[in-house]
Order: sequence, then C-alpha cells, then structure tokens
Amino acid sequence: MSKPYTFVLIHGAWHTGDHWAPVAESLRADGHRVYTPTVAGFRESDPSVSHADGVDSIVQYIVDKDIQDFILVGHSFGGTIVSKVAEAVPDRIRRLVFWNAFVLESGKSINDESPPHYREMVQGGSSGGMFELPWEVWREAFLNDADHETAWRAYESLCATPVSMLEDKVELTKFYELIATGRLKASYLNCTEDTAMPHGEYAWHPRFSSRLGLCRIVQMPGSHEVIFTNPTALAGKMVEAGRD
Amino acid sequence: MSKPYTFVLIHGAWHTGDHWAPVAESLRADGHRVYTPTVAGFRESDPSVSHADGVDSIVQYIVDKDIQDFILVGHSFGGTIVSKVAEAVPDRIRRLVFWNAFVLESGKSINDESPPHYREMVQGGSSGGMFELPWEVWREAFLNDADHETAWRAYESLCATPVSMLEDKVELTKFYELIATGRLKASYLNCTEDTAMPHGEYAWHPRFSSRLGLCRIVQMPGSHEVIFTNPTALAGKMVEAGRD
Amino acid sequence: MSKPYTFVLIHGAWHTGDHWAPVAESLRADGHRVYTPTVAGFRESDPSVSHADGVDSIVQYIVDKDIQDFILVGHSFGGTIVSKVAEAVPDRIRRLVFWNAFVLESGKSINDESPPHYREMVQGGSSGGMFELPWEVWREAFLNDADHETAWRAYESLCATPVSMLEDKVELTKFYELIATGRLKASYLNCTEDTAMPHGEYAWHPRFSSRLGLCRIVQMPGSHEVIFTNPTALAGKMVEAGRD
Repeated sequence: MSKPYTFVLIHGAWHTGDHWAPVAESLRADGHRVYTPTVAGFRESDPSVSHADGVDSIVQYIVDKDIQDFILVGHSFGGTIVSKVAEAVPDRIRRLVFWNAFVLESGKSINDESPPHYREMVQGGSSGGMFELPWEVWREAFLNDADHETAWRAYESLCATPVSMLEDKVELTKFYELIATGRLKASYLNCTEDTAMPHGEYAWHPRFSSRLGLCRIVQMPGSHEVIFTNPTALAGKMVEAGRD
Repeated sequence: MSKPYTFVLIHGAWHTGDHWAPVAESLRADGHRVYTPTVAGFRESDPSVSHADGVDSIVQYIVDKDIQDFILVGHSFGGTIVSKVAEAVPDRIRRLVFWNAFVLESGKSINDESPPHYREMVQGGSSGGMFELPWEVWREAFLNDADHETAWRAYESLCATPVSMLEDKVELTKFYELIATGRLKASYLNCTEDTAMPHGEYAWHPRFSSRLGLCRIVQMPGSHEVIFTNPTALAGKMVEAGRD
Repeated sequence: MSKPYTFVLIHGAWHTGDHWAPVAESLRADGHRVYTPTVAGFRESDPSVSHADGVDSIVQYIVDKDIQDFILVGHSFGGTIVSKVAEAVPDRIRRLVFWNAFVLESGKSINDESPPHYREMVQGGSSGGMFELPWEVWREAFLNDADHETAWRAYESLCATPVSMLEDKVELTKFYELIATGRLKASYLNCTEDTAMPHGEYAWHPRFSSRLGLCRIVQMPGSHEVIFTNPTALAGKMVEAGRD
C-alpha cells in the first residue's frame, strides 16, 4: 500500500473522462483521490473547439476545484493537453505521467508527429471537422489484446474527435524549460504491445519518452487500450509511475 | 473460451509438422480443429525439392482435405510458405498469423533477408544440398530459454533442410496486393526473447511485421522455439493472434 | 532444479560485493557455490586505484582461492572487469554472463561508451577523484521499479566510485579473440526496464550484447537495480544465463 495521492487523469482522443471509471475505482480502493474531467470538444463532439480551448477547459476544472499537489496523467492525445496544463499551473503538479502519450516537439501537432498513413487517414476520413477512428484500426492497432466482443463494445463507446485537436500546433517552450530545470518531474508508462504508434521509427517509447529529460520509465504488458482489458494493472502502474 | 476455429500450422526449417503436437493438443482441448502438414522436402530430407514444390505440397494438402475458413500460421521459414499458399487459396483463409516468421520482400530469399553470418553459415555448412543447423546456434540463439537436456532432446528431433528452401527467391506480388487491399488479414506473433534473428537491425519485429500493413501485433515471452518450452502459452497466443 | 554451479559475481559501480547477499543466498539455497568479491577501490573509496588494479584484485582473489570452472557474472561496470579477468584466467571460466553490463570496444572507457549527459555528469560531479551518483539519477533511471523507501535505503548503502574506473581505457584484443574463437562462451541478461543506459541508441541491449558473437540472450522484467527489488528472480535468471 503506497501513501495516498491525488490523480487527475486526462483521456485520449475518441475517449471521455468516463472511460477511466474502472481505473479510478481501482485507485480509490487503494485510498487515492481521482479526478477524470473530459476535455472540451469531446463529450459534445464540437468541431469549433480548438486545442487551446481543450487545454483551458482542464485548467479551469483544476482551478475551480482548487486541486493541489496532484499527479497529472495524460494518455495518448492527452499528453498534449497535460503538457500545456503544466505550463499554466506548474506549482500545483506533483509529477507528470505520460501513458503512451504524445510529448510533442514545441510547435508541432499530433499529425506532424504521426506516421504518414495516419495523417492521410485523418485528412481523408474527417467529416464536418470531426474524425472517427475506423473500426479496423481500432481493432488491430489499438485494442489488439482484447477479444472481439470487448473490442466492439469499447468501439461503440467512443466519440468523434475534433480535427483541431490533431492538427493544431502546440507551443511548448515553457514546458520544456520546466522539464529542463527539474521544476517538473515526469514519468513515462509504456505498454509493450501498444502499436497505436507502430513499433520502430514512430514508436511511443523511446521516441517521446526521451524528450522528458531525467524521466522514470515504467512498462507493463498490454495494448494502447489496456484501460479496457486490464484497468486494475494499469492503476497499479500509474502509482508506480506517479509515486515519489 | 473463444469460439472454435480451424488452424493450419506450417512449421519452420529443420522441423516437421509433428513438432506442433503439444500445441495442437492444447488447441484441440479448447475445441479448435488443427492440421499440421509437413512441407515437402523436410520429412524425407530431399534436396531436389524446390521452394515452389514445398508450397505446392501444402496447397495440395489444403485442397485435398477441402479445408475452408482457416487460420493459417507460419513459423519462421514457414512464413515464406504461407505467403505463397495465401496467393493460391486466398478465399479459404480467415487470417494469416506469422509467428516469428519471414515476410519476404517480393523476389527475395530467406538468405537474402538474413544477416551475413547466417548466409556464410549456410554456404559453408551445407552438404549434398541439405543444411543442418549447428548445435551451438540452436542452443544459444534458437532455444535460449530451455535447459540443456530439453535443448538437446529437441535438437535430436530436427531434420536437415533443403538449401533450396533458404536460397530460392520468392515472388510475392499478389500476396502484397491481397494485404494492401485488405482481402487478407494478418497478425504477427513475436516472442520477446527470440534471437534466432538477432535483436536490432535484423530483428523479426518490427522488421517483418511492418510489411503487413494494418497488422495485429501479439507478443509473449520466450525464444524462437517456445514450441518446446511453453507450447500451451503458445497455443493461447495463436488464438489471440488468429481470432476475429 | 539445475545442477550445481560455481558463480563469481562482480558488482557494478557504487556497489560492493556485499550487495549481492540476497542473490547469493538464493543461489546457495539451490545448491550453487557463490563468491562475491569487492573490486579494489570500492569498499575503501580509494581514488588512486586504477581500472587495472581493480582487475588485478579480482584475478588475485580467484587465484588465491583457486576457484575453477565457474560462471563469471559482471553487472554494469562489472562487465569491464570480467572481460579483463577472462583474458587473465580464461581456462578457469565456464561461461561469462553480462547482466546489463558494459562490453567495451577495445581501447574504450565506460565514459567513451556512455551518452553525453553522463559524461558531463561525471566531469562536473566528481570530487577528489571519486564520483557519487546523484540521488535523482539513481531514483529515476537506476531504481525506477522500487518504492521511495526502498530506493532511498539502497542509495544510502552505496559507495563512491573512483573516477579512474569510468575513465580508464580498457584494451580487450585478447578478450575478443577468446570470444571469436569460441573459447569463451557468453550470455547477456537484460532487464527490460533498465534505463540506466537510456533505451534507444545507447541501450544496453542489443548495443553491447551484439559484440559477444554467438551469445545467449536472457531477459526479465525489472530495472538496473533489480538486485534490490527482485533478487530471487534475478538469481533464477543468472542460472538460465549461466547454465550449459
């Protein structure tokens, strides 16, 4: 039993905060406090919401609830949100945890850091400024460790993502200063069967983790969506990644 | 318990279909149907058999038994066989599973895709058109996760491989069209301690798996020959790789 | 239960032979004989001791005790010691095991083979010819799989390392001849969460393991310092790596 921490969990694209429920339950059972806000633009599927709006919605949530001294976790797309939130409220954050998450170079977008076939998929497949992940990509590359029923039920629970969240460039100069000066501590949790970014040149780890300076690496078996297949183990690894 | 599937399992070099026995037993115990043919040239150690002959022997086997809607698994060298079998009978195949298997570039041979020290080993060590794997290579690089007795007993069960199987160039234009158009679905099962292809530049994964388009990646601990050290877990992972 | 072997275990930088105690206990419980000498310059924190002196101290220990037919294990820095010990007494050694250890190119030092930020850390942080590992590096990059208390207690048990051990160039021509001719057999044990060398370009494996010719690869989960977090599993993997 580790000491109790406060976690703020930021979801990935096509998800909302509700998807964290089994992870949050597991963390709370061990005595931790957990917040699972939804980034603006997701639950309501609003294409007019920019990446900056998404960041603001989370900063506002943290300030409104006056959450202090917390471990801020970002999954996948959520990594681009927590990097900006960290710039806004660095002194409230105990540690950042990137779980198979984007750590963008300053001035880059998610599309800029994705392999060509994903960029083409987003360009060709978005509609009305929103993008839904194709089933085949979800089943084979995102939730490769689930049986078919689990993968399908999870797919039906997804929402569309505003294309702005994937295309907006994110300025991160202050974030990298906070990392370089050690004012922000960061961990990277890597699921070893996560192929949402294909293994090799575009892999999550060490491509993104290596940008975090003296970063604690934690690994576990599982896919990009182990949130559906093993939320209890995921919660345990978040504690390993987030603890002092 | 997953729904029952039909598996056709194609062995690697120096093996015959008989080596699948404990894997097949485990799959059958879970209700699956399993076929384990031996590629022509192996059981009889016949150096006059070409790669094309080997492919034909498996196509004939499938047609003779009228096997339909099956998961076709290739291990190691067997990957070069299943790629060509898929060209011949694509509509019979539910999904391809490459288990630490060669996915050749069209027009290449196994030797072409192997590191220099293996090419030299085959050139220097073959006799009468057949090649036996040296014990030291088997023990250190193929069956690195077994104790000495298991490794030795397994070694004594091996057969020589016709050099043609390693040197014949394999034309795979149609195979790659079937993959690119999504008519063939493929998975890649990677054992994380498999050093039959050395980790790094020549590694099985992601070198070969990245050629399979939208491919499902499944991993498990173990060596290239986990068929001898953990056949039950291997069978379970084949279901994970092969299922819908 | 494997047959009983004799192990000589050589510690890494900032460690002494005493740190092996729980590993040695586990090996002895399985019937193995175990020696855990401390390399000269470590227990006494003597900056005037050269790398060659450290090697001599271990050769002398082996000759004095007339240890024969043993598995020689080197951890981290210890890899540079066992490579030279192997040159001195090759006929006494049954097998070499490098556990996340340096396999230097002939004529190189540990600093030469380390990433730039480590070289700068040693240059900027040494005092009186000795170098102590900073706590933050230890906690995040070396003992990333421990809780805070375990990491801190372990840190308090460390000693300073003579800078000579990190900067002295090590000539290994004979070692590589012994490897190339097969007179020395080698295994490499890689902990998959070991980020003391960062994953990627500077990773332990396959960077160092690939220099060992036909080398047996064994892997286990855990950090660079799994000696503190899972000594029993480590002992088991040493047997897997070291056995015939």
